[in-house]
Amino acid sequence: MKVSVCRKEHFNAAHRLFNSGWPDEENEKVFGKCNNPNFHGHNYELIVKLSGEQDPETGYVYDLKKLSDLINKFILEKFDHKNLNLDVEEFKKINPTAENIAVVTYNILRKEIDNKYDLKIILYETERNYVEYPA
Amino acid sequence: MKVSVCRKEHFNAAHRLFNSGWPDEENEKVFGKCNNPNFHGHNYELIVKLSGEQDPETGYVYDLKKLSDLINKFILEKFDHKNLNLDVEEFKKINPTAENIAVVTYNILRKEIDNKYDLKIILYETERNYVEYPA
Amino acid sequence: MKVSVCRKEHFNAAHRLFNSGWPDEENEKVFGKCNNPNFHGHNYELIVKLSGEQDPETGYVYDLKKLSDLINKFILEKFDHKNLNLDVEEFKKINPTAENIAVVTYNILRKEIDNKYDLKIILYETERNYVEYPA
Amino acid sequence: MKVSVCRKEHFNAAHRLFNSGWPDEENEKVFGKCNNPNFHGHNYELIVKLSGEQDPETGYVYDLKKLSDLINKFILEKFDHKNLNLDVEEFKKINPTAENIAVVTYNILRKEIDNKYDLKIILYETERNYVEYPA
Amino acid sequence: MKVSVCRKEHFNAAHRLFNSGWPDEENEKVFGKCNNPNFHGHNYELIVKLSGEQDPETGYVYDLKKLSDLINKFILEKFDHKNLNLDVEEFKKINPTAENIAVVTYNILRKEIDNKYDLKIILYETERNYVEYPA
Amino acid sequence: MKVSVCRKEHFNAAHRLFNSGWPDEENEKVFGKCNNPNFHGHNYELIVKLSGEQDPETGYVYDLKKLSDLINKFILEKFDHKNLNLDVEEFKKINPTAENIAVVTYNILRKEIDNKYDLKIILYETERNYVEYPA
Repeated sequence: MKVSVCRKEHFNAAHRLFNSGWPDEENEKVFGKCNNPNFHGHNYELIVKLSGEQDPETGYVYDLKKLSDLINKFILEKFDHKNLNLDVEEFKKINPTAENIAVVTYNILRKEIDNKYDLKIILYETERNYVEYPA
Repeated sequence: MKVSVCRKEHFNAAHRLFNSGWPDEENEKVFGKCNNPNFHGHNYELIVKLSGEQDPETGYVYDLKKLSDLINKFILEKFDHKNLNLDVEEFKKINPTAENIAVVTYNILRKEIDNKYDLKIILYETERNYVEYPA
Repeated sequence: MKVSVCRKEHFNAAHRLFNSGWPDEENEKVFGKCNNPNFHGHNYELIVKLSGEQDPETGYVYDLKKLSDLINKFILEKFDHKNLNLDVEEFKKINPTAENIAVVTYNILRKEIDNKYDLKIILYETERNYVEYPA
Repeated sequence: MKVSVCRKEHFNAAHRLFNSGWPDEENEKVFGKCNNPNFHGHNYELIVKLSGEQDPETGYVYDLKKLSDLINKFILEKFDHKNLNLDVEEFKKINPTAENIAVVTYNILRKEIDNKYDLKIILYETERNYVEYPA
Repeated sequence: MKVSVCRKEHFNAAHRLFNSGWPDEENEKVFGKCNNPNFHGHNYELIVKLSGEQDPETGYVYDLKKLSDLINKFILEKFDHKNLNLDVEEFKKINPTAENIAVVTYNILRKEIDNKYDLKIILYETERNYVEYPA
Repeated sequence: MKVSVCRKEHFNAAHRLFNSGWPDEENEKVFGKCNNPNFHGHNYELIVKLSGEQDPETGYVYDLKKLSDLINKFILEKFDHKNLNLDVEEFKKINPTAENIAVVTYNILRKEIDNKYDLKIILYETERNYVEYPA
């Protein structure tokens, strides 16, 4: 049977939720306080989960130190202490909801991690709101 | 691929575990301290998880503010600061174990949430004891 | 300089807040949901803190295993899985607010612990509400 | 002896750390990633602690529901889902470090709470960085 | 539908990661700080999850007090306050990675728990590194 | 009034509690499971708290990035992934109880931090056992 290994990292970022094709009142109605044009922000907690076979020589599925280095290089360098809307290429066209941040994170890391591993992203925007991708 | 979105809420309640068809000694033996006829209580942490497609206009699977409002209206109004055995209709005939509280919560919310979303309930009775429904 | 050592324990209990000398409407107004006559309940997290000199032979201020045993014997045996109002002598005359539970706990443990140690009680009623005695 | 009662609330905000009288290189050197001109953000956890005598009628030092309402009205309404630098009058002239957010919070609440209570602010900017005022 | 019930326990242990068939430099390169020949250690958080049908008489899937007793008898007695490499038979031939501790725990408990229940192990080695078996 | 700033770090280490001047039975009696000659271990959570005046130019009491660097250089380099009894000079003559680890940490950091700051160490050995120095 396969084993899953999980690594938790965090980043702090500002963002604003809105649809640039909508009038202000519609954005205000749908996104409420999250639509503040001056941005607000979060401490995001990011969990990356890999599932696969154990290496019989090491007992590891994947070295979590290497997974941490990958997340730092490809995700935290882009997102940490940034304004997601203004500083991150991927969110110039899509809304930086927790769902979309998880999907973008998945798509970036999927290219860096061998397909023999299943990949899942769990992202806490606050202690009470979190998302998982794939479901 | 689908995305899951999760909202955590909490409520405080009193309860007693017992089977009204059993003699006292049997209830004492099976339910131990949880069978105290004068009740005891918990801070319950409730997580409601919905899985589905993202709305392309908003980037949301489901607005977590609306999900929080639903949970407050249909669950917390019934359970919070209540005696589950005496004050809540659903537990007048069934034992308010964590398993049954999760099933009752699922059955109530399932009627309020479109069937295009998968629904799952995670309920912490204490930091060390929790249940999930469906499994 | 002195060192403090702290031990965290927990108990689950039901309670109701009210002043038996007041009319119902006054209790309802002052204590709100906490005044439910059928009780509600909490997972209480209790921290007992002792401050004193280290024993030069052991490096301990106080053996935390012994402190845990004391708390279990004198506090958890009385409070855990109980109805504080109905089952606990100390709360038959006083209201089981978090403040009073902390004061009662202090008074019980103060008799069991040598006066060469300073004693402090920290009690979490919920994750968001907690009290300390002495202040 | 006095008792302390504590209420924890949270808010999400964007901010940027810098001294407007300094050249960019100096701000970059001193504040590093926190100096991003496009802002970043945090989930702030705010604990407000009051110490005083218990009311003999209620057993309360201070009704934590009322304390929560005060914090919501005077602090969260100003800070939650805001850009501290751009949206909050108090931080137009001072740098929104955790230290200054705690001091500003103290000064606002001190006017709303009777001086018979000692007041203390504990503010978590991240799980690993927090401040207390007064020390 | 089935319900899952989960019980969390903890144990403290020392361990060292290495492959006895490798030269020192290779162990140093692959396992880094975890290869310290004098050992290091962790507070392990262990969650055991059982999924099955509810007993219609009790409302339980499985009595979590009994599950706690099983984990204490078969796992904590072996692992708690031990050196996994030196004191635990199962790790004399295999490397005590988090993955292998989870697999060994699964194999021991699988024999003690009726096959009508699905069994899953979740093991936190640190707050940031954890594993699940089966995946 | 002064402000306190706090930084939390963690390290993993093995240790054994015993008094080298005592016979085995006495060590066994006093230190119980913690006396295992093969060692056990913990994930230690270390909080370093500095209290002082704010710098009027920055709004900081002390740059927490610098405090983190100091703790890493002077404490984590010595303690992390080590056997406290065998690998750390300071514990060759004194018992590595949580109390003594806090005192040793204080004494090392006191030399690195200007005396205009008050210094306090808070050390969690487990989630349920922690110490503070000075008291």
